Amino acid sequence: MFDFRPVLFAIGILLTTLAVAMCAPMIADLVTDHPDWRVFATSAGLTLFIGGILILTNRTQIHQISIRQAFVLTTLSWLVMTAFAALPMAYSDIGLSYTDAFFEAMSGVTTTGSTVIVGLDDAPRGLLLWRALLQWLGGIGIIVMAVAIMPMLKIGGMQLFRMESSDTSAKVMPRVAQIASGIGIVYLLLTAILVALLWMSGMNGFDAFAHAMTTIATGGFSTRDASIGYFQNPTIEMLIVLFMVIGSLPFVLYLHAARGNPGQLVRDSQVHWFLAMAACAVAAVAVWHAWENEVGMLQALRVSTFNVMSILTGTGYTSADYGSWGGFATSVFFFVMFIGGCAGSTTCGIKVFRFQVLHATAKAQISQLMQPHGVFIPHYNHKPISAEVSQSVMGFFFLFAATFAALALMLGMLGLDFVTAISGAASAICNVGPALGDIIGPAGNFAALPDAAKWVLSAGMLLGRLELYTVLILFVPAFWRG
Amino acid sequence: MFDFRPVLFAIGILLTTLAVAMCAPMIADLVTDHPDWRVFATSAGLTLFIGGILILTNRTQIHQISIRQAFVLTTLSWLVMTAFAALPMAYSDIGLSYTDAFFEAMSGVTTTGSTVIVGLDDAPRGLLLWRALLQWLGGIGIIVMAVAIMPMLKIGGMQLFRMESSDTSAKVMPRVAQIASGIGIVYLLLTAILVALLWMSGMNGFDAFAHAMTTIATGGFSTRDASIGYFQNPTIEMLIVLFMVIGSLPFVLYLHAARGNPGQLVRDSQVHWFLAMAACAVAAVAVWHAWENEVGMLQALRVSTFNVMSILTGTGYTSADYGSWGGFATSVFFFVMFIGGCAGSTTCGIKVFRFQVLHATAKAQISQLMQPHGVFIPHYNHKPISAEVSQSVMGFFFLFAATFAALALMLGMLGLDFVTAISGAASAICNVGPALGDIIGPAGNFAALPDAAKWVLSAGMLLGRLELYTVLILFVPAFWRG
Repeated sequence: MFDFRPVLFAIGILLTTLAVAMCAPMIADLVTDHPDWRVFATSAGLTLFIGGILILTNRTQIHQISIRQAFVLTTLSWLVMTAFAALPMAYSDIGLSYTDAFFEAMSGVTTTGSTVIVGLDDAPRGLLLWRALLQWLGGIGIIVMAVAIMPMLKIGGMQLFRMESSDTSAKVMPRVAQIASGIGIVYLLLTAILVALLWMSGMNGFDAFAHAMTTIATGGFSTRDASIGYFQNPTIEMLIVLFMVIGSLPFVLYLHAARGNPGQLVRDSQVHWFLAMAACAVAAVAVWHAWENEVGMLQALRVSTFNVMSILTGTGYTSADYGSWGGFATSVFFFVMFIGGCAGSTTCGIKVFRFQVLHATAKAQISQLMQPHGVFIPHYNHKPISAEVSQSVMGFFFLFAATFAALALMLGMLGLDFVTAISGAASAICNVGPALGDIIGPAGNFAALPDAAKWVLSAGMLLGRLELYTVLILFVPAFWRG
Repeated sequence: MFDFRPVLFAIGILLTTLAVAMCAPMIADLVTDHPDWRVFATSAGLTLFIGGILILTNRTQIHQISIRQAFVLTTLSWLVMTAFAALPMAYSDIGLSYTDAFFEAMSGVTTTGSTVIVGLDDAPRGLLLWRALLQWLGGIGIIVMAVAIMPMLKIGGMQLFRMESSDTSAKVMPRVAQIASGIGIVYLLLTAILVALLWMSGMNGFDAFAHAMTTIATGGFSTRDASIGYFQNPTIEMLIVLFMVIGSLPFVLYLHAARGNPGQLVRDSQVHWFLAMAACAVAAVAVWHAWENEVGMLQALRVSTFNVMSILTGTGYTSADYGSWGGFATSVFFFVMFIGGCAGSTTCGIKVFRFQVLHATAKAQISQLMQPHGVFIPHYNHKPISAEVSQSVMGFFFLFAATFAALALMLGMLGLDFVTAISGAASAICNVGPALGDIIGPAGNFAALPDAAKWVLSAGMLLGRLELYTVLILFVPAFWRG
């Protein structure tokens, strides 16, 4: 029998935290005299109640969960949090259906940033704060998971980032908890700095607060329908680009840097690759945009930098309708979605280190073809890549492509046109935000989609966020037989 | 120093064969009293002359070529053949530029089937015959390569299909030559049977001949602008579907069957998977087409079967404008391009056995995640898959995706819109024929593309046809250093 107790206990704790988080938007609505405060209060109460019951009825030693329990906990916690986080949105004044609320909540906690809400500029403060807070919590949640859980589960090559050689969770946990709280402090500090900078650059306090949280989380929810395009402020755009980049690098390296060892951050090959890929994509789109659409080079560079970085990092803010820039730009925006940022950051997508492993492996294979009797070992960050990691990463890549195709086909079946279906699937599984085309492109909104498509996209976001395996493994009957 | 002699010698022999083949369209033009016969005669003379020189100046023992020479031979022979095969088209009455002629010839020898010629119905017989013949020769060429050369080069998991455990070409060659000639006879017989069947079903003799050659080669060049849609004949469509399937299965199994051992063909898991995938795709599109476009179920099944099978197998005939069937159909047509048929057939694409290996490997990985200390070995056709094959296939999959993306980006840079760029890249690298969208979709033609795009697509066809590695390895400096 599968022992659900530690799983339910942990979920109980998370729900309690969520209930506490709900007090922030409640206060915001109380302060602005908006009736939604009652919705948040009720939701917080319900969430706290359920969380409390789970804690009280499942008290156990959480430090000693098994690998199987860790899988269940990961998927279930994300799912349950989303279901409860959707409550205040479903019952808010803005009148979303539960489907829409669930979609918006999933887009929040997975730091995707796709939205079904039109009229953000006039939306109640509580709701806007709640959306930003969900992304902020989702962002730190995924970093902690990437540091603490994923390497233990050996998912898609994440074992590259294991801290200890030991397999047992009991030994690793204390050290992991220390690192996680360190990262939490860094995350909080970075957010605070960005709030101050955005505020000094001309945003009002609330916008600065909300955008700082969704920027560092590479989430992309905005308080404006026109997203960052609303502000028309180059300083704000530059700041946000800088902090989207900060959100895309491995947070554990910031911790090392803060402890007086910035060398690792500067020398990390994943960081180099990420910056190099970003520079290439930005430069290519900028030159294309300037040439094709006869835009001044400086203006082209400004909008390309902002929008390419936003899509590459999976943040999903927009400052222009890049869907109208032409075929090449569209193709770049489509393909960079899949890249994402570095492992151990708030970004999603395939992630840079996997492309490095795939590239190194392909290179070794080509050498092998030339010298069948030679021995060629691929390297990552100057260390040899084990066959196990190599296989893990390649398996992940295949599963990612297959899941993307399956999502696109399902969306097509639900009546979406080709471009909407494939770009919507890519945007969901890579946790980007906007997709391509007239409906859900940079100038569009997800509200127009049929309900079933919203559920498919929600599933896609969860799959992408939890690195596929964590979710898919639960559908293997053998998993439950033990 | 790299010894080019055996390579040039072999290319000399191939050119001589090509020159002989050019006599067929010459005779066709002579018979129909078309002045193009002189073009074919001149081209044949020139090709024979160059081929003869290469043979005479490079006489050597071809049976003992090295692995490196085999790589160079494979890519160079395909390239040189295309360059010469383009000659009669460039100087023909129809007035193609050399770019167009090269594109058409590459589309021919790689059995792709994309065409730049408008007005096929009134085109001279010699030209039509030449196009068909190129695909037919390309088809048998690739089967022989898949049996004789690819397993030796260990490309993308093709070592699964090695006949002998020995590595040296000298030992394997006699047996391979025997198998290759056996397959040649099967290929010829199947073509003859199809000619007879098509003729009996109402095609005129010439059309039957041309279409039989391009069907068994899963090539897709037609003698009609409307492709098979011209004939409006269900019997012809059914026959062609049957022979496209025959062209998509491993030809070596027909040889076993002809020698009294049909069991292998019936039990082969690659064959099962191919038929199962095909049935699913056809059924899904048929139901969608019937439902969405209010077409009768029988009619929907007829057009879906023909067009899905044509695109899945990479043949590229069309009988209807499936681009207008809606988002789901378009998505299916896009994704099945990548599948292709079985290894050792005339089809291109990623191929069924690779999906089997990827699936088996992913399954083993998931089991491994659940039981970190267990041992799980993926199987193909009831035999364990070695880690080497598994890695080869996964590396191939990644390189395929990366090359596809690079081609799409290049096409976008040349001014093609998003759908044309990504579907054009897919169609080229998978050797399909038609792509999607208004320009190069099932109702379109490649003539309208800019010249540079035609060269990019030609490169894509060659890369796809030669399983990427064979071509890409030549760009590694270390290859030439030995």
